[in-house]
Amino acid sequence: MQLAKVIGSVVSTQKSASLLGKKLMVITWVNLDGSGPAQNEKLEEIAVDSVGAGVGELVLVTRGSSARKIFPEPNQAIDLAIVGIIDTIDRF
Amino acid sequence: MQLAKVIGSVVSTQKSASLLGKKLMVITWVNLDGSGPAQNEKLEEIAVDSVGAGVGELVLVTRGSSARKIFPEPNQAIDLAIVGIIDTIDRF
Amino acid sequence: MQLAKVIGSVVSTQKSASLLGKKLMVITWVNLDGSGPAQNEKLEEIAVDSVGAGVGELVLVTRGSSARKIFPEPNQAIDLAIVGIIDTIDRF
Amino acid sequence: MQLAKVIGSVVSTQKSASLLGKKLMVITWVNLDGSGPAQNEKLEEIAVDSVGAGVGELVLVTRGSSARKIFPEPNQAIDLAIVGIIDTIDRF
Amino acid sequence: MQLAKVIGSVVSTQKSASLLGKKLMVITWVNLDGSGPAQNEKLEEIAVDSVGAGVGELVLVTRGSSARKIFPEPNQAIDLAIVGIIDTIDRF
Repeated sequence: MQLAKVIGSVVSTQKSASLLGKKLMVITWVNLDGSGPAQNEKLEEIAVDSVGAGVGELVLVTRGSSARKIFPEPNQAIDLAIVGIIDTIDRF
Repeated sequence: MQLAKVIGSVVSTQKSASLLGKKLMVITWVNLDGSGPAQNEKLEEIAVDSVGAGVGELVLVTRGSSARKIFPEPNQAIDLAIVGIIDTIDRF
Repeated sequence: MQLAKVIGSVVSTQKSASLLGKKLMVITWVNLDGSGPAQNEKLEEIAVDSVGAGVGELVLVTRGSSARKIFPEPNQAIDLAIVGIIDTIDRF
Repeated sequence: MQLAKVIGSVVSTQKSASLLGKKLMVITWVNLDGSGPAQNEKLEEIAVDSVGAGVGELVLVTRGSSARKIFPEPNQAIDLAIVGIIDTIDRF
Repeated sequence: MQLAKVIGSVVSTQKSASLLGKKLMVITWVNLDGSGPAQNEKLEEIAVDSVGAGVGELVLVTRGSSARKIFPEPNQAIDLAIVGIIDTIDRF
């Protein structure tokens, strides 16, 4: 999983039925210290929220079939999902 | 999922049967502000349209098995699909 | 999916049984205009041909489980497959 | 699989149910000689521990559905897992 | 699939049960001409051998669920596997 910050949201009316009712959040990848997009990282991506994350929050994001499978309905058009809101990061 | 712009289409007669009748659109990855190809991103890829997207439109693209599974027939030779047309992007 | 050019082939006698009888083609990623390896792209990869592609042809390549599943036998050791030969590319 | 070093841990209370009781470890990718983040690599990611790895240890990490499937419960929101602690590396 | 060279091996006692009895080989990605790590490529990764590959050999490597599925037991913690030893490469 990766660390990201929620920086916005996207509205799409004409979309795959499996995305109906899903919150499409704009995220940007961040380093451990919360600083800007990690080196060599894609700048922004769109993740479906599954835990009630709000804009500005530091979140845990999972990718691929693991992102799809956390939603009960089969065959979701989802390859990126927010699966946790970060409370604390301990770096040793 | 990722943001992309539809910039063309591809014709392939000799292809996997699972691609018959599918619209093969050329897309390029874009940043939130719509500017062209995100840093470090592959320049162009080919995505199967599933929502009636037209050239020039800003779209939502999903990758991997999630792209394959939105089509009813099993075992599609698809790893990238357009799954939404973007109306608005709110950046906070 | 991605655009690639077939630039050679590979012979491997000692290999996974699932690759027996499969044509292992060397491909390099190309831009829309057919020019050299796309920026930041792996230079060459090996894809299993599924449509009779020949050397020098511009092809459509799919990755991951979608590449494996176009072959009827289960559990193929395949993560990259040629799934179409490109006739034309229309860029708008 | 990839080589990584465990450099910390993350706490998330509001998270996918499938992550309950799982240890979320911060890892950074390392070269064979244990030196800093591999060239062109994402700096840090979050992996679920499955072998009792501690901070500072050199570990083996697997990605994607293979990371999800090592846990018995179905549909885990996991795309990265620590699956081994490295004893020795022999380079020839 | 990708071309790689076997450059060593790794020993891990404390590991996922699914890795027991598996040979964990260190590989580095190579270009067609066998020269050093492909541009922009991760330097070294760990692949499970499935064809009896030895150190120094040029091999064919597959990634993701296709790497996991070549082993008979279910739910292997494997995302990278050596699936062929290269005899010859013909470049046109």
